[in-house]
Amino acid sequence: MPNRSVFFVSDGTGITAETFGNSILAQFTAKPRRVRRPFIDTEDKARQVVAEINQVADQEGKPPIVFITLVNEDIRDVVTNTACRGMVLDMFRTFVEPLEREFGIKSNHRVGRFSDAAKSQEYDDRIEAINFSLAHDDGQSSRNLELADVILVGVSRSGKTPTSLYLAMQHGIKAANYPLIPEDFERNKLPSALAPFKAKCFGLSIDPGRLAQIRNERRPGSKYAALENCRYEVNEAETMMRREGIGWLSSTHKSIEEIATTILRDIRPDRLIY
Amino acid sequence: MPNRSVFFVSDGTGITAETFGNSILAQFTAKPRRVRRPFIDTEDKARQVVAEINQVADQEGKPPIVFITLVNEDIRDVVTNTACRGMVLDMFRTFVEPLEREFGIKSNHRVGRFSDAAKSQEYDDRIEAINFSLAHDDGQSSRNLELADVILVGVSRSGKTPTSLYLAMQHGIKAANYPLIPEDFERNKLPSALAPFKAKCFGLSIDPGRLAQIRNERRPGSKYAALENCRYEVNEAETMMRREGIGWLSSTHKSIEEIATTILRDIRPDRLIY
Repeated sequence: MPNRSVFFVSDGTGITAETFGNSILAQFTAKPRRVRRPFIDTEDKARQVVAEINQVADQEGKPPIVFITLVNEDIRDVVTNTACRGMVLDMFRTFVEPLEREFGIKSNHRVGRFSDAAKSQEYDDRIEAINFSLAHDDGQSSRNLELADVILVGVSRSGKTPTSLYLAMQHGIKAANYPLIPEDFERNKLPSALAPFKAKCFGLSIDPGRLAQIRNERRPGSKYAALENCRYEVNEAETMMRREGIGWLSSTHKSIEEIATTILRDIRPDRLIY
Repeated sequence: MPNRSVFFVSDGTGITAETFGNSILAQFTAKPRRVRRPFIDTEDKARQVVAEINQVADQEGKPPIVFITLVNEDIRDVVTNTACRGMVLDMFRTFVEPLEREFGIKSNHRVGRFSDAAKSQEYDDRIEAINFSLAHDDGQSSRNLELADVILVGVSRSGKTPTSLYLAMQHGIKAANYPLIPEDFERNKLPSALAPFKAKCFGLSIDPGRLAQIRNERRPGSKYAALENCRYEVNEAETMMRREGIGWLSSTHKSIEEIATTILRDIRPDRLIY
């Protein structure tokens, strides 16, 4: 889809429109140009966006695709009326109305699903989880490991840090992470701090070739980054996790989102229900 | 909506179904029980989920709401056929088909929009941004500040760290953050490391009462946490940001998502287009 733009227009952050729109677009091969227009919370701002959409329609000779999450009906009307020459996909109207009928209640037309978040317990828990995960990144601290929901283990650069932070940020999960290092392999046992907490450990492994590539970006030509050393560490780590009965997966072809969801499903299935 | 469950069923992580479903549900007052069922990628797994949905329907005496993002039609049929006693909202079918007509091409029925992510440049940039933001958290390093996309400034505990990590993780933005401390207020100038980079600085402020509350959780009864001291620091920081022409907002009633989107809009509007 060269020469085809997609707009995400919202009265809030636009994250919902964007997340959803991108998952729809992922069903098509080509990559369109994408434009997020957040905080469109007045008719005036909506008219400006419509002008932008129409200008793009002229330039590209085709209607841009416009995903909207607009709660206020007057603002929404500006974007959905015929003066707007985009193809508008109205996510709220499509699904909210059938739900109003099913629930037998009217929706409250509340703008911005994140707006009230800042005051909630859930939100405070999320911030606390981020602080916990930062304090327990890379085995920095063995204090309070009993408070961790999950402890990620794996060789250096196997993806533990981004996964821990994602679990904390998106799910309020206190995720510590602990590296497995050559000394652990020589001693042939898990770091002793982890022994009491095996049930909440989860391992990340990685293809040795990919690991060598990542480590070489950090410390080019080092023993640490050498393919042979990466093979050794990965093999030892996988053997150890297998022996200790720690569930693990390979992060090589998985995104942070997929890794995090797998960990939740396997270690904390309760956190998929809320 | 007590006694009403909502399911998010997906062949991938379920994040899209959940994000979208929750934004729809935010339009209604009460909070239903929510269940995410990821990686439903065989008809067998789909049948298990349908059994779970039907059991809940019996318990609650009402059809559960079921948001689905299922690409494979055979699997989808298991959930959408009449044996499933949930109210199914099929997000893909609703929007993919009109787009196929508009684009004049068939969708590729690709499962899991995150699956290919792990191999992309965009994904590598995101991991690099997370590493950068971690290395530049809380003014830890002034090295390579010229590589930062954004530098957040503000008093201790004003929300800089979670915002930086969110910007990195969700947007691949290299976000450093730098505390404003009493010494800066005494000298009455910005930390000197920041002087060349004022254009990419963005300030976070916070209500002094809320700040005192947060700091008291960390260091109860300290001068650091005292309301009077918080008032002083916040006032000095706001005065400094105003004088230096640094844009800022109050994080008190805003979620991380709202803060991050505002920063992008104000400092890096180019990153809202991709």
